[in-house]
Amino acid sequence: MAIDRAPLIPALKNIATRLRIDSARATSEAASGHPTSCFSMAELMAALFFAELRFDPKDPKNPDSDRFVLSKGHAAPILYAAWAEAGAFDRAELMKLRRIDSDLEGHPTPRLPFVDVATGSLGQGICAAIGIALNARRIESDYRTYVLIGDGESAEGSVWEAANDGSLDRLDNLCGITDVNGLGQSRPTMFQHDMDQYARRWRAFGWHPIVIDGHDLSAILDAFDEARSTRGQPTMILARTIKGKGVSFTEGKDGWHGRPFKKGEELDRALAELEKQFVPVPAGGPTTNLSSLIPKPPSKSRPVVTPKPVAPPAYTMGEMVATREAYGTALAKLGDADPRVVALDADVKNSTFSDRFEKAHPERFYENFIAEQVMVGAAMGLAARGAIPFPSTFACFLTRAADFVRMAAISNVGIKLAGSHAGVSIGEDGPSQMALEDLAMYRAEPNYTVLYPCDAVSTERLMALMAYHPGPAYMRTSRPKTPVIYSNEETFTIGGLKVVRESDGDVATVIGAGVTVFEALKAYDQLLAAGTRIRVIDLYSVAPVDRDALVAAGRASRGLLITVEDHYAAGGIGDAVAEAVAGAGLTVRRLAVREIPRSGKPEELLDRFGISAKHIVETVKSLKSKV
Amino acid sequence: MAIDRAPLIPALKNIATRLRIDSARATSEAASGHPTSCFSMAELMAALFFAELRFDPKDPKNPDSDRFVLSKGHAAPILYAAWAEAGAFDRAELMKLRRIDSDLEGHPTPRLPFVDVATGSLGQGICAAIGIALNARRIESDYRTYVLIGDGESAEGSVWEAANDGSLDRLDNLCGITDVNGLGQSRPTMFQHDMDQYARRWRAFGWHPIVIDGHDLSAILDAFDEARSTRGQPTMILARTIKGKGVSFTEGKDGWHGRPFKKGEELDRALAELEKQFVPVPAGGPTTNLSSLIPKPPSKSRPVVTPKPVAPPAYTMGEMVATREAYGTALAKLGDADPRVVALDADVKNSTFSDRFEKAHPERFYENFIAEQVMVGAAMGLAARGAIPFPSTFACFLTRAADFVRMAAISNVGIKLAGSHAGVSIGEDGPSQMALEDLAMYRAEPNYTVLYPCDAVSTERLMALMAYHPGPAYMRTSRPKTPVIYSNEETFTIGGLKVVRESDGDVATVIGAGVTVFEALKAYDQLLAAGTRIRVIDLYSVAPVDRDALVAAGRASRGLLITVEDHYAAGGIGDAVAEAVAGAGLTVRRLAVREIPRSGKPEELLDRFGISAKHIVETVKSLKSKV
Repeated sequence: MAIDRAPLIPALKNIATRLRIDSARATSEAASGHPTSCFSMAELMAALFFAELRFDPKDPKNPDSDRFVLSKGHAAPILYAAWAEAGAFDRAELMKLRRIDSDLEGHPTPRLPFVDVATGSLGQGICAAIGIALNARRIESDYRTYVLIGDGESAEGSVWEAANDGSLDRLDNLCGITDVNGLGQSRPTMFQHDMDQYARRWRAFGWHPIVIDGHDLSAILDAFDEARSTRGQPTMILARTIKGKGVSFTEGKDGWHGRPFKKGEELDRALAELEKQFVPVPAGGPTTNLSSLIPKPPSKSRPVVTPKPVAPPAYTMGEMVATREAYGTALAKLGDADPRVVALDADVKNSTFSDRFEKAHPERFYENFIAEQVMVGAAMGLAARGAIPFPSTFACFLTRAADFVRMAAISNVGIKLAGSHAGVSIGEDGPSQMALEDLAMYRAEPNYTVLYPCDAVSTERLMALMAYHPGPAYMRTSRPKTPVIYSNEETFTIGGLKVVRESDGDVATVIGAGVTVFEALKAYDQLLAAGTRIRVIDLYSVAPVDRDALVAAGRASRGLLITVEDHYAAGGIGDAVAEAVAGAGLTVRRLAVREIPRSGKPEELLDRFGISAKHIVETVKSLKSKV
Repeated sequence: MAIDRAPLIPALKNIATRLRIDSARATSEAASGHPTSCFSMAELMAALFFAELRFDPKDPKNPDSDRFVLSKGHAAPILYAAWAEAGAFDRAELMKLRRIDSDLEGHPTPRLPFVDVATGSLGQGICAAIGIALNARRIESDYRTYVLIGDGESAEGSVWEAANDGSLDRLDNLCGITDVNGLGQSRPTMFQHDMDQYARRWRAFGWHPIVIDGHDLSAILDAFDEARSTRGQPTMILARTIKGKGVSFTEGKDGWHGRPFKKGEELDRALAELEKQFVPVPAGGPTTNLSSLIPKPPSKSRPVVTPKPVAPPAYTMGEMVATREAYGTALAKLGDADPRVVALDADVKNSTFSDRFEKAHPERFYENFIAEQVMVGAAMGLAARGAIPFPSTFACFLTRAADFVRMAAISNVGIKLAGSHAGVSIGEDGPSQMALEDLAMYRAEPNYTVLYPCDAVSTERLMALMAYHPGPAYMRTSRPKTPVIYSNEETFTIGGLKVVRESDGDVATVIGAGVTVFEALKAYDQLLAAGTRIRVIDLYSVAPVDRDALVAAGRASRGLLITVEDHYAAGGIGDAVAEAVAGAGLTVRRLAVREIPRSGKPEELLDRFGISAKHIVETVKSLKSKV
């Protein structure tokens, strides 16, 4: 690519100026936003979009397009301006920035076809970019992935998780750009323009750092060339820039973060300064409209993937199998059936049993070591590009990636999370290893599917449903072995439940999930021996729940519902059931963990913390005596 | 300290052997735990506890003691063995490891007096150590802080947030130790024994790295000396070790993580090998009992801090003040009244208004830049050592530290979190900046206090309560300015609420908090104009809630409670109210955000997502018509 790019420079410079003008005008019109954060990166965006990326503005989802992730999502206006400049949509739309009737939101979301993942929570875009770059390998495409982060953003630990992953995976198809504008939101950044601080960190983490003047278009183009020809490691272009560049009264000035120009005199002054920066384009060089020169991605015809049927479960009734183990088996089978299925681990694959997938499909297994944020972030990127990713670790450690779980909801991206070792039933390892707030975390998000199987058959069946259900999902699995209670032919649905015991004389319905289904069944046996019948429900789908079936069960059992869950009281199954049946005139009594637990044997802990068969029996008896 | 330590070495070697034996026996007795993770660090622990730390085993909470944080919490058995060896408790107790009747849990928790913060979620202990080291400065103590992490743990981004903070704060009173044993849980660690990978990362992040053989006691002691004499930066001792060291069939072997020796032949073989490693102690040297030689911390008499009264609020009724701004004012006032109050920021101090505290008390203001995990982790360390820390950022970005929030619950440590910019009422910035699941996150933890004031007076009053209420707490503040509705003399209680409108003819009770109190008040006015009276409650204490007052209000208003919250439907105020009044025969109707929101004007979003006055009015009318 040793073409002479000198004639391009004036045209790119004019694009940079236009991007600044568009960013200023749009944010002033919206009366909010971050124009000065856009100004620092205008040359970077002009060079990237009009002399580097291969893409089709009219077909942004093309699987072989180069990808760009704006990790510093608050610079959204210049992202939108660049896509408009490229011809993706009418430039006039930019003036609707941040309006309720426009998809040009304050921070980018995949409501826009050219945005893969929502950004705006710093340090996440670069994790997604890891997944997007891995995806290129998965689909054997030579598309390249570019991600732009801020210098302030570099303080986020997730950035260094991504840095570590990028070098360990030798992602030379990935190019980072740090816009080192030296100013954070509230003060100068930690290193201001000490470029060596950044260079030595990225170098130490195994990347190829290139320090440049981020307003020098020739230097930017050279850096892109160098990145493209770097093998075996990702590149980080460290661009020294000036926040507010282009307008004299904002250049390098603190106090302008997140502050648009006031319409009228202030904006007019800024625009007048910017307009003066247009330069003549030499005769014979490219015109000021470079969009026609954007190289299109290679047009490969990619066959539509038709997954094979997933092999059915093959368990024996009563066989003792932990749901976490059934998860591993199911995951490997899903991988057999569908090449889009991939798995991600954080060095617990032998506990979550995702190592069964690794053994069957090593090329689609990504080891993130103990770094949950980049594991989930990379899954977001993979999902955005067509993979069906299953990141898994202990359920409690997925809370490490709670902000990624949140942003995945905003992206509505199909990550399939699995958390093992839920609840006090893990036993001796103690509270730090027990997930007791995970259901609350996922249920809070309005678009997550939450599944919680109690046996191996339901785990396998639900895994196959989860893989193909649109949007993000979470499966909770347990550490102890539990008996298989469903036949291999049993069917399940997202939003369903199973009534596992019922009679005409039930005095209450006990609703369990996971390990507590078996406590409920023990309670059933004990109560039956004393002549009392209860209905028992396995609430394997926690979000959504089957309201109608719950109400019907309650009405058939004297209006009494007793929930029992290996989870804290707030936000879990009790709340899910109570909200679902609200207004139906039923009584919901909740058994849940109500204090910080401790180490002990699983059965001791279930009992100590109020969710064992004994507590269910007592609750049924006490409620019965009141009726 | 140029004393000749050579005679110490044999005694320390024997202690290391005894720590291995104790770790093996305790885990075998418990039939679970991580003996081989203890074996790799036995010499490090022997040297640290018996030739470096200044502490009193009988007075572990002494404010001037050197501190040790075991960040790799799964090595708890050797921590317990070291404290027993030092004389803190009877060695026989070690055999109760992981039992429900013992505080020697699977991972360390502050149930033990010598544990500052619970560990076991990797990458957190080192963040707490930052806070503990900062605390030494705060109380002008020369105690030193030591923290031991694992090599696998180094993949966690939070470790690098701590690394960054430690060097920016020039914490030369902090000494890290990485136990580079080369084996993770499920496979070799990412760099195995490539010590340079670790050294260059820590050096790049501004620490003084020292690479040693972690089984060479002289080298360990020299490294501690070097760390103690290093000025202006923290030290990281990178100790090359062998996992399973000391037992031939576990040394450097994969497959032994988290696996104790089976009692009987396997354990006996291991113990026999270890017993043979005792060495003779030279005559005239120290005995094998080194506990008497442990240097005590300086006994300073530290005056009990008696906080001054906090200056009362000084607002005018109806004055427009955002609760986030009142938070900043209150925080600065608390700092005036009590020198233990400190504040931590993640580069949003001008949005959360914590910059008011910085201005008043710059020496107690800690800037963490954009790194929420270390901000909360450092707060945990500060709180464990007697400070009253207020870490604050946008509420949505505290989800980044969700796992720290969880571990702070397990530690039951008094961090006082504050999250601003809650809900869709922030407007144009869009969903990435809106906390809509934060109440669910904190409510799930059984020991968090959750406060959500609606005006400036209640914010100030609740801040003073929150500071002195035991345990962790969270305050949610809002972006928009809201009118002051309480007089400066009004009193509030944790667990209380305010009935702000009531009459004898109320047809329903509307329960709001924060911005929705004002939607409820607007609804009240509109309904009153049409002749319908409602009761309006300000539920400023979300956890705990005032059950009795809610039930009383419901009973006085035709049994109808309508909750309205700028939060997703699951886990928030609706669930809190519903659980509180369960069984009282009341109907709870919930207005909440039920889909992923978008950018727009605050008032547009409140309306679009179903929580504006209009929706309250409609709900009251629809319920009234059904009664």
